[in-house]
Amino acid sequence: MALRYIGQKAAQQIDEELMSAAGAFSIDQLMELAGLSCAQALAKSFPVKTHARVLVCCGPGNQGGDGLVAARHLHHFSYNPTIYYPKPGGKDLYQRLLKQARNLGIPVVDTEGFPASLEGADVVMDAIFGFSFHPPVRAPFDKVLTALAESSKPILSVDIPSGWGVEEGRQRLTNTQGEEVATIDPEVLISLTAPKEGSRNYTGKHWLGGRFVPDDLAKRYELNLPEYPGVDQVVELPPSGKL
Amino acid sequence: MALRYIGQKAAQQIDEELMSAAGAFSIDQLMELAGLSCAQALAKSFPVKTHARVLVCCGPGNQGGDGLVAARHLHHFSYNPTIYYPKPGGKDLYQRLLKQARNLGIPVVDTEGFPASLEGADVVMDAIFGFSFHPPVRAPFDKVLTALAESSKPILSVDIPSGWGVEEGRQRLTNTQGEEVATIDPEVLISLTAPKEGSRNYTGKHWLGGRFVPDDLAKRYELNLPEYPGVDQVVELPPSGKL
Repeated sequence: MALRYIGQKAAQQIDEELMSAAGAFSIDQLMELAGLSCAQALAKSFPVKTHARVLVCCGPGNQGGDGLVAARHLHHFSYNPTIYYPKPGGKDLYQRLLKQARNLGIPVVDTEGFPASLEGADVVMDAIFGFSFHPPVRAPFDKVLTALAESSKPILSVDIPSGWGVEEGRQRLTNTQGEEVATIDPEVLISLTAPKEGSRNYTGKHWLGGRFVPDDLAKRYELNLPEYPGVDQVVELPPSGKL
Repeated sequence: MALRYIGQKAAQQIDEELMSAAGAFSIDQLMELAGLSCAQALAKSFPVKTHARVLVCCGPGNQGGDGLVAARHLHHFSYNPTIYYPKPGGKDLYQRLLKQARNLGIPVVDTEGFPASLEGADVVMDAIFGFSFHPPVRAPFDKVLTALAESSKPILSVDIPSGWGVEEGRQRLTNTQGEEVATIDPEVLISLTAPKEGSRNYTGKHWLGGRFVPDDLAKRYELNLPEYPGVDQVVELPPSGKL
């Protein structure tokens, strides 16, 4: 049975079901597990000995929250993360996650500090846009995506490479002024709960995270999820997505 | 530097600090990570091929919550957990964790169902009493501890073997009627955040979980924590506790 690639609507519905009264998960729980899986995927792709300096780029929404959690776990995995978080989300949860990271001494930089942080990084975690993204790309992320695309630093993207369509996949992008924004091509991708339509033709290293999806939910959405190994929170997918 | 064994007061203070405004953790986050580490310790001690049937005994407090989380992760690790939860805590969190487990089809039994569940188990997770326990042992856990002690099933205890003094260690116990309660001797122990005074002379397999303790907190409490391997949430301690 082939793994299912889901669209934006199914991705939203799965999240809503998990956090509904019936699903009973809190966002704190799910974000903790999602962020932990992102950190594990990075650690399994880029060894700490060669890639200790990780620039974690966090967007304003839930995916930015996953990035904040991942940065904290990367610190505990002996990496030296730096967080770029130019548009902190208003939710109390994001503020707490940011504080947890600051309590570990993880540097948090703004757009002014971004270029030097990118220059000093061994690898970038892209937790900017998730499955709710719609173009055009809003500032400051237009310049950030172009800088990432033009950089030689390897990128691990969370859920869908930022700027790619969650269903359309790799696409040409513009900012709100109609200026071109470069498209990133991450070396590594970690899909959360199930891979998205837009990653169907992605050919890099591909992880799946979200070892919390209830069996009956996976069955109803016909996700055909692979088995995770051992006690890991991630499983590597074959490039084709065929299992 | 030797690992520090902490007393009840330090254990309580560490928990309070983590969840204070300064520490910024929610109980949902910490319980998720603690329960995941318990599930990992069990999986690393009792392989699923020989010990798939796990009876997770949950007490009325936070340690019972850790057990509920662990049962859910054990299910995702391909174990067949059963939850014994005779005195569900009143907190909304416990109700949600129980619902998450029920949503996976994990059986939940009461005291009437306990003997058959113990009989059918390959291994027991003891998440009954944590570092706030004070004797005597209240019903129905007096009979439960005696049944566990008299059973030949291997036990993994969470934080401190239930009934042991968090500082005093292995001790003779009575129930509220002054009747003797048997003392359990778990094959495996997982200490959370730091080992407790009462486990100093524990000689079984000993794991440490809680890969979220901030460095400065560990330093202030002189915990001298060991390094965790790879992306695991647990690290095995030498029997003596010396590192």
